[in-house]
Amino acid sequence: MRGRYKINYNKKNIPQPTIHRLTIYLRCLELLVENENGKKKEMISSSELSIITGINSHQIRKDLAYFGGFGKRGIGYPIQNLIITLKGILGSSKKWDIILAGVGNLGEALLRYKGYKKRGFNIIGAFDKNPSKVGKRINNIELYDIQYMKTFIIKRNIKIGIITVPAQAAQEVAEIMVNGGIKSILNFAPIVLKCPDYVTINTIDISIELERLVYYLSAETYSDN
Amino acid sequence: MRGRYKINYNKKNIPQPTIHRLTIYLRCLELLVENENGKKKEMISSSELSIITGINSHQIRKDLAYFGGFGKRGIGYPIQNLIITLKGILGSSKKWDIILAGVGNLGEALLRYKGYKKRGFNIIGAFDKNPSKVGKRINNIELYDIQYMKTFIIKRNIKIGIITVPAQAAQEVAEIMVNGGIKSILNFAPIVLKCPDYVTINTIDISIELERLVYYLSAETYSDN
Repeated sequence: MRGRYKINYNKKNIPQPTIHRLTIYLRCLELLVENENGKKKEMISSSELSIITGINSHQIRKDLAYFGGFGKRGIGYPIQNLIITLKGILGSSKKWDIILAGVGNLGEALLRYKGYKKRGFNIIGAFDKNPSKVGKRINNIELYDIQYMKTFIIKRNIKIGIITVPAQAAQEVAEIMVNGGIKSILNFAPIVLKCPDYVTINTIDISIELERLVYYLSAETYSDN
Repeated sequence: MRGRYKINYNKKNIPQPTIHRLTIYLRCLELLVENENGKKKEMISSSELSIITGINSHQIRKDLAYFGGFGKRGIGYPIQNLIITLKGILGSSKKWDIILAGVGNLGEALLRYKGYKKRGFNIIGAFDKNPSKVGKRINNIELYDIQYMKTFIIKRNIKIGIITVPAQAAQEVAEIMVNGGIKSILNFAPIVLKCPDYVTINTIDISIELERLVYYLSAETYSDN
């Protein structure tokens, strides 16, 4: 029998949409456990998981089978086990230190957000070029001058950075991060960052997210021709 | 010859990942045109588009072929034409009025963001239940009591809403929006909203976005077994 943390696949080969769905399964299972409190549900079937995630159950079974058979036909998956396994796969059972660059409105909102910690993420420093911000604290996170960012990344061995600077400054900031040793960037600037292949970039562009919604909305107003 | 706006496909059948990539092509082409200024480039090949978008050229050709053959082998795509066509497909050549519910840090950051307008989006009202916020203006957008949200949506015929309220209030707010007639929701609350099938929901959960990054980061620290 395979142990929970012995994962016999090559992570690099798992398609990104599968990873996206795994994060959704994990989040929904955790919410389920939080909300259940007293009445403890031990097992969950793929069709129950389908209802709470909105992802169809065939897809769920396929995604989870990717990582070895930890469900039983007709019975389902043991919830706690599935949570631990998903955390193991996603690497979210670890703790991760993060830095953030650009303390404007969005940057400040992200610094004030309390939801990271229980997911294992900890913003340990924020950087801005505006001298009037340097030295302040937001949500107990210190704001430093951006010229010290690279040294900070190296010293603290940071691997994850969040970019909330304006578009025209984002490429430069990304390069400083990568030069310091950062390998994963969550980018909110509406540009396509150029980074070496070994750096993973996840860009969230609010306008693009709205456009994706609008596509489906406008589907109703177009007719086939 | 097919006219630019005569789109002969059923929008509902286009896979979501294709739509996601189309929004990226459009954004990158627009940035290209903005940055080019004087030296006008008229055509772009799929391999050039691949370099600026980071999406492989085979995929690009496949995605664009979906919507009819508007490129020429060996020559590429006419840039301006491609932009107009993509806008037509995505519905982003239209103007869309939007409302926002929940004026905390993130909501305020989104209200202050100036990038929507040139993408055709216009936030025309924001709603909060906190009486100390009601009546104020942020970036010239008026803040109303959330009890008037449904009436506002109906009166102004709003189809798109942004949710930036805390997780525990998000479901109720989504229901008010849907009852008012909203069909597309951009949700920043870290929960899975339950809405009727005809409503499109795009949830952005910062922790989940970080987890997606961490998966690739932790891939290096796991060994195959």
